[in-house]
Amino acid sequence: MDASQTLQTLLDREAIAGVIRAYCYHFDRNEPDAVAALFAPDAVVDYGPEAAVLHGVAAIHKAVAAGLANTFAATSHHVSNMDIRFDTTETAHSVCYLYAWHRYHSGAPDGELWAQYHHQFLRTPEGWKITRLTLKAAGTKDFHRATMHPIGRV
Amino acid sequence: MDASQTLQTLLDREAIAGVIRAYCYHFDRNEPDAVAALFAPDAVVDYGPEAAVLHGVAAIHKAVAAGLANTFAATSHHVSNMDIRFDTTETAHSVCYLYAWHRYHSGAPDGELWAQYHHQFLRTPEGWKITRLTLKAAGTKDFHRATMHPIGRV
Amino acid sequence: MDASQTLQTLLDREAIAGVIRAYCYHFDRNEPDAVAALFAPDAVVDYGPEAAVLHGVAAIHKAVAAGLANTFAATSHHVSNMDIRFDTTETAHSVCYLYAWHRYHSGAPDGELWAQYHHQFLRTPEGWKITRLTLKAAGTKDFHRATMHPIGRV
Repeated sequence: MDASQTLQTLLDREAIAGVIRAYCYHFDRNEPDAVAALFAPDAVVDYGPEAAVLHGVAAIHKAVAAGLANTFAATSHHVSNMDIRFDTTETAHSVCYLYAWHRYHSGAPDGELWAQYHHQFLRTPEGWKITRLTLKAAGTKDFHRATMHPIGRV
Repeated sequence: MDASQTLQTLLDREAIAGVIRAYCYHFDRNEPDAVAALFAPDAVVDYGPEAAVLHGVAAIHKAVAAGLANTFAATSHHVSNMDIRFDTTETAHSVCYLYAWHRYHSGAPDGELWAQYHHQFLRTPEGWKITRLTLKAAGTKDFHRATMHPIGRV
Repeated sequence: MDASQTLQTLLDREAIAGVIRAYCYHFDRNEPDAVAALFAPDAVVDYGPEAAVLHGVAAIHKAVAAGLANTFAATSHHVSNMDIRFDTTETAHSVCYLYAWHRYHSGAPDGELWAQYHHQFLRTPEGWKITRLTLKAAGTKDFHRATMHPIGRV
């Protein structure tokens, strides 16, 4: 075991976990600028088959800001089961679980989502950035999307 | 990177996370003595605008014990999204997410809470202790409090 | 502080957390072979007083596969509050919290479970394996089990 390299891996894992947490925190506080700042310029986000795949940080910013302004009155994104793996020293991918609660501007019943975030990350001079985010759902209740990418249950 | 200092930071972060976990575990088992032991003598707890701010471990113990005895028949406090930051080598603050489920002695419907704990910590000879705890809510369902401190969604 | 031993402990803790996460991930994807592979040959699983205690990995595989095939149409197992402690360098035990959501083949309402996993682990040449798993519940809603092992609330 190379101690210095192992320590670096532990620090990188915590830094990447911090990006995932920051996404939740800023999303739930309706801070789309701070959410968008977590993504690489050419990042791709796929929230599911009912929404257009978002290409690039400008498109991500616009979609997140619109959702936060028009759809959600309040949200809470609880992430756990974080499994972060390094592909190279500069790239990583992860799966984490998401339990999310949503209150709607429409007055519709609160929506719940039991899901997974599948992330890819790139180390940059400004820290780890998200290069890809795909949302896959195990189930929903009163959610504003009827169809989601599945988690792959056979 | 100073390896020894980095290791100490990782150990301190795990120790602080352990204090947050112990709060949940002992609260859910109705062990107010063990909950109170996690706080510094002059700790301050603010559970929200409907409850008096608690000053000092004796007041915290009394309020927690009363809630556990009179209000809650069962609870489960699930914490995640733990973001722990050090202000000095002896002090830290953190934000974590809380999803809590509550069954009431009154027979009222089970209450759910989607929230954040905002903590401050102090290193003491007996380990890290909570010096401040503020509860902020994103949302509630059938909760016994109608008004909570907000998470700051704009 | 022995840096090398401390690093090993941090890596072991992450490896054990990875076993718990893998249990959830493979269970939710209906992959009973992968779930069973996480257990030691003579592992014991106790899901509660309404189910027979499972002795050995073959019995665990059979019970998990049956539940996944016959009872659950979808599940999502969100684990948090992971408290992992080492008894020796080769053995460990842990408590973590579980919030689980279940959709049933029967068409019964979705079941929710607020609970704890109590695990024991053994280091083997093939990595950490679960030697014991006991499920204890704080509460349930529309769950397919009426009686669970309690978390020990007094």
